[in-house]
Amino acid sequence: MILVLNKSLSESDIADIASQIERLGLGAQIVGGQTNPLVFVSGNAQTHPSHIFSRIAGVEKVLKLGPACPRVDAKDIRPITIGQGVTIGGGAKPIVIAGPCSVESQEMLLETAQAVRAAGAVMLRGGAYKPRTSPYDFRGLGKLALEYMAQARSQTGLPVVSEVMSIEQLEIASEYVDMLQIGARNMYNYELLSAVGKSKLPVLLKRAMSATVSDLLQAAEYIMLGGNEKVILCERGIRTFETYTRNTLDLSCVAALKSLTNLPVIVDPSHATGRRDLIRSMSRAAIAAGADGLIIEVHPQPVRAMSDAAQAITPAELTKIVADTRKIADLFSDDTDKLETPVLSLASTVS
Amino acid sequence: MILVLNKSLSESDIADIASQIERLGLGAQIVGGQTNPLVFVSGNAQTHPSHIFSRIAGVEKVLKLGPACPRVDAKDIRPITIGQGVTIGGGAKPIVIAGPCSVESQEMLLETAQAVRAAGAVMLRGGAYKPRTSPYDFRGLGKLALEYMAQARSQTGLPVVSEVMSIEQLEIASEYVDMLQIGARNMYNYELLSAVGKSKLPVLLKRAMSATVSDLLQAAEYIMLGGNEKVILCERGIRTFETYTRNTLDLSCVAALKSLTNLPVIVDPSHATGRRDLIRSMSRAAIAAGADGLIIEVHPQPVRAMSDAAQAITPAELTKIVADTRKIADLFSDDTDKLETPVLSLASTVS
Amino acid sequence: MILVLNKSLSESDIADIASQIERLGLGAQIVGGQTNPLVFVSGNAQTHPSHIFSRIAGVEKVLKLGPACPRVDAKDIRPITIGQGVTIGGGAKPIVIAGPCSVESQEMLLETAQAVRAAGAVMLRGGAYKPRTSPYDFRGLGKLALEYMAQARSQTGLPVVSEVMSIEQLEIASEYVDMLQIGARNMYNYELLSAVGKSKLPVLLKRAMSATVSDLLQAAEYIMLGGNEKVILCERGIRTFETYTRNTLDLSCVAALKSLTNLPVIVDPSHATGRRDLIRSMSRAAIAAGADGLIIEVHPQPVRAMSDAAQAITPAELTKIVADTRKIADLFSDDTDKLETPVLSLASTVS
Amino acid sequence: MILVLNKSLSESDIADIASQIERLGLGAQIVGGQTNPLVFVSGNAQTHPSHIFSRIAGVEKVLKLGPACPRVDAKDIRPITIGQGVTIGGGAKPIVIAGPCSVESQEMLLETAQAVRAAGAVMLRGGAYKPRTSPYDFRGLGKLALEYMAQARSQTGLPVVSEVMSIEQLEIASEYVDMLQIGARNMYNYELLSAVGKSKLPVLLKRAMSATVSDLLQAAEYIMLGGNEKVILCERGIRTFETYTRNTLDLSCVAALKSLTNLPVIVDPSHATGRRDLIRSMSRAAIAAGADGLIIEVHPQPVRAMSDAAQAITPAELTKIVADTRKIADLFSDDTDKLETPVLSLASTVS
Repeated sequence: MILVLNKSLSESDIADIASQIERLGLGAQIVGGQTNPLVFVSGNAQTHPSHIFSRIAGVEKVLKLGPACPRVDAKDIRPITIGQGVTIGGGAKPIVIAGPCSVESQEMLLETAQAVRAAGAVMLRGGAYKPRTSPYDFRGLGKLALEYMAQARSQTGLPVVSEVMSIEQLEIASEYVDMLQIGARNMYNYELLSAVGKSKLPVLLKRAMSATVSDLLQAAEYIMLGGNEKVILCERGIRTFETYTRNTLDLSCVAALKSLTNLPVIVDPSHATGRRDLIRSMSRAAIAAGADGLIIEVHPQPVRAMSDAAQAITPAELTKIVADTRKIADLFSDDTDKLETPVLSLASTVS
Repeated sequence: MILVLNKSLSESDIADIASQIERLGLGAQIVGGQTNPLVFVSGNAQTHPSHIFSRIAGVEKVLKLGPACPRVDAKDIRPITIGQGVTIGGGAKPIVIAGPCSVESQEMLLETAQAVRAAGAVMLRGGAYKPRTSPYDFRGLGKLALEYMAQARSQTGLPVVSEVMSIEQLEIASEYVDMLQIGARNMYNYELLSAVGKSKLPVLLKRAMSATVSDLLQAAEYIMLGGNEKVILCERGIRTFETYTRNTLDLSCVAALKSLTNLPVIVDPSHATGRRDLIRSMSRAAIAAGADGLIIEVHPQPVRAMSDAAQAITPAELTKIVADTRKIADLFSDDTDKLETPVLSLASTVS
Repeated sequence: MILVLNKSLSESDIADIASQIERLGLGAQIVGGQTNPLVFVSGNAQTHPSHIFSRIAGVEKVLKLGPACPRVDAKDIRPITIGQGVTIGGGAKPIVIAGPCSVESQEMLLETAQAVRAAGAVMLRGGAYKPRTSPYDFRGLGKLALEYMAQARSQTGLPVVSEVMSIEQLEIASEYVDMLQIGARNMYNYELLSAVGKSKLPVLLKRAMSATVSDLLQAAEYIMLGGNEKVILCERGIRTFETYTRNTLDLSCVAALKSLTNLPVIVDPSHATGRRDLIRSMSRAAIAAGADGLIIEVHPQPVRAMSDAAQAITPAELTKIVADTRKIADLFSDDTDKLETPVLSLASTVS
Repeated sequence: MILVLNKSLSESDIADIASQIERLGLGAQIVGGQTNPLVFVSGNAQTHPSHIFSRIAGVEKVLKLGPACPRVDAKDIRPITIGQGVTIGGGAKPIVIAGPCSVESQEMLLETAQAVRAAGAVMLRGGAYKPRTSPYDFRGLGKLALEYMAQARSQTGLPVVSEVMSIEQLEIASEYVDMLQIGARNMYNYELLSAVGKSKLPVLLKRAMSATVSDLLQAAEYIMLGGNEKVILCERGIRTFETYTRNTLDLSCVAALKSLTNLPVIVDPSHATGRRDLIRSMSRAAIAAGADGLIIEVHPQPVRAMSDAAQAITPAELTKIVADTRKIADLFSDDTDKLETPVLSLASTVS
């Protein structure tokens, strides 16, 4: 952290500011800036609220040298286990999570669950509570859908993940699912992030449409600060001027996240592209970029899906994607083929 | 709504699809498209979930001719009254809402409230629950802040507005405030929108950083669908590649919203620019663009603010902005100077 | 400028780097950074190519404290005179430039020119060479159009401006026009910028769809470096995710540019919005934001325009906009109503 | 193409419009729209200037059903040969083009050329004319650099590519290079596109920072319309709100372009990310996404590069990337592993 001081301060004023910093248990080094004096603050400055610094008389500006994410930035996080036997991150082989956008009925869910297991996916997704842009569109079967998800797990052995949009839904879903999903629309819902931070379940945290890498990491920090270290990050496309695809898949973000944190990172090519013709190529690209997994929308009859029909693929297409994933992962499984270890820490970025 | 049909359908298949549409109480007109047959659907199609149409066998694509916002699109909405005596929209003179980003203490709030009233603002803003990107930053005084807000109202007569981020906070805040604010980070939090839709209080709905005009209108529809018609829209800057300002203020959106709906539209130049040197010019521009009001962050000692210090202005600067607002509003108060009546309805846009 | 040095350098290595800086005629102050030693460079560092610094052995990174625009940043630039008697910037009243997107024929141009003069515009725009996204669309009448523009000037007394897209067109157009326009698509065409830098004619430089404020200023620097100080900047909308308007008008940029440079700044609401129903409100907003003028597309029969028909307005609408412009300008003509003097210089921004 | 007609037209007015369309050699089918009558135009409407339709009396709006790119859309384009023996696209194995951002000296270029050949690259890149945001930065050695490039070709056998920014540079460079590059900043420079359209040399066309897929295809159409069918498209990152990377690499665009056209598509991970730590992972991802090749900035001493130092990699790193590229390409070389044939044509997109 760098404090930019007022130009007109006397030497003793500046020394006094340095003392205040030191009383916080931090280091302070004074330097004469080009126009203004500066104080470099060393130590664990990032977990102090920044107004502690900005409100010191004589301080004009606080420059942070990285987002405040000590928990996310910790480098000793282990792979995360979901349900019985699914392991993600920490060097484990990439996994594929698949299932319908919405749970439409008991029958369609069980059919889809069997099909995605047969295709090689290791986990089932399915929407019970659906965030829809229009209030008139199908908003999910709610608790009933969660019951069907639990049945599907019993029948297939696949752990299940479903999105929650409120604390009330979180409490209900926790009875049924193996992993909680925070969707892109709620990544900035800090109350909800704090609430899942107190859960014992792993959390799939999706990047918001407008979130920078730094915003996403700080959202993860909210969860981890509550005590829940089982956070899986998910890139699902950001909003840009391009209209050919629903969003713009940002795979550089995957590589950046992998170098900035040891949390697992997966990719959702379905929401990123919004087009079923691009899912397979983007799945290949995501795994090649180093993602720890994929989450893909699958429907027995894609064009008949009650939501997100344009981006759903068939189980047959999923089978090919699972095979692609294994092939690419095998290609780079030797130590010598792995990407170099991270060269960056959060502290080297400027926010 | 236009349904694009499969090329290989027979005439009787197509006639059958038209019948299904008519059985929903809607009109159906069949036309031969350039490559695919089309069905134009007339009537109140937009409040049917779109999967009702997309799942009809033979339908390949559903093109909506506008977002589904019949409540927002209604043209007879009257001006909205907030607290005792503040009226916004419907041709009323533009108003200025001002106050601190965060309520920092009882003393600073009362001082600020007196100052903003003296400056000519008619309503007080103040954050009790603060959405902060970093979990380590100051997150507000909570209920205590709401109590101070109510005291400030007693002392100054100004109605008060404060942000809520969860249903629990909504319940608490409803005891104290005259208007509820849904912040940009929660515009896509549909559970919260539905909850404030059941409130009797007016709602200030801020556009999300990544929301299109259509997204914002549909968020308002969520609130109105619950029965609450007192929705005030707020443009507060969108995320773009430009880094000179915190966000990019989109004033075209103000003019567009004014032509698409009769809901009042206000502008938040503080969050849009993130820089106090641009607040006054953007306030002038917002009023000239036709905004019904402004919401501005004011602090007795801006650089000492516990949050958003870079964008807070002094009460003295606010006084000038209120004067500017009145002057510009007076300039265009004659009927002949008013902007023409809306030329668009939501149905003329394509989504 | 700050040079971030390698951590492993000895004190004498660092002193040696400081000496190299000083031999360039610049100041060098060594400070111990949090992790790496730093050298603050003072003096006219910004007009040295940055590789001069980055290539010094031991330098890891060069941080510039502002874009390199000493000519643009100079604060003594006077108002610019275009043709006979049109003055822009430097405190002059805002002006309105208007005319057709394309010069379609001699007759239509003369008719339009008379109409825009009658409406109160002081300068005529008209496209001779048209940059069109599709090569199959109308690309302008070329030199013939320039001849008509010169005729229109003779008949109306209005100075004329037209876009050039190549050095060849620049040479031809210079015979006919009073101001050269560099369009948004050529703002990064540095060869063309250098070429107009050698012209004696004023240059209207439009911001590219993806240009930051800093990019635009550096494009102006290219022109001024050639010796031509008569540069007028133009905000015309940037590309964002919003599709309701053709581009997103960024009026904060106008206020920012006015505080960063003394060059005149005008606004093109036609290209920014792409919709004739938004031109008047955005014109008002632009003038209220402090713009020195407007450039607007006008057509005798807007829906029949050969290019940009959706955004052309009638001469009658233009008359109202000119009146609005005068009223708003008069409102803030007193010294006490003027916006404060700039608080920023380029050097206070970080690039 | 769909023409939206004025509501108040009589049946005979509408029939008259249809006749006008038919006289252009196109088909016209009249349908009653929901509010306005419509005319569907069939046949080769897209190569008529769109004002031909918009200016017909009674026509209110022209909706194009795809960008006008008949040459780009043609499906029989063969692989492109560059210089002696380098083949790209049309099912050929992906290639790697590498070399310095700028040609800094004869010695460094020859050293780099030998190194990139040893690493397995098949073509040499090197900047002679450099578009630089700041006019004070190093702008290239010009013709001298081109001479060094030709020498490097003689010594290594690698064909060479270099950027041109003006018609004058195009004429000079054509004497030396095997492929001309149009950089991102000149993708909208239609005069230059038309000029390279008359060249016999292959053209590497980079996507502009703000270009949609449709814009890029239409830029290619400009070149092909001049007679030059040897166009290679290049994705190099677009401008978004994300600041962690220099630009945002849009790999969906690669897959989309491969389905929309048979032109080869390559990826520039250097400019897309601006960070050497992300080049290898993004190179893998690009090839996995289906790219026909990569163009990468390499420097013997990356941190000493005179331009783009942060993104240059070493020859050693390039060696690994070439190996990765071959492995991934081999993985999907069987017919059964290839991505499905395109499901889209340009005409199925809406602009």
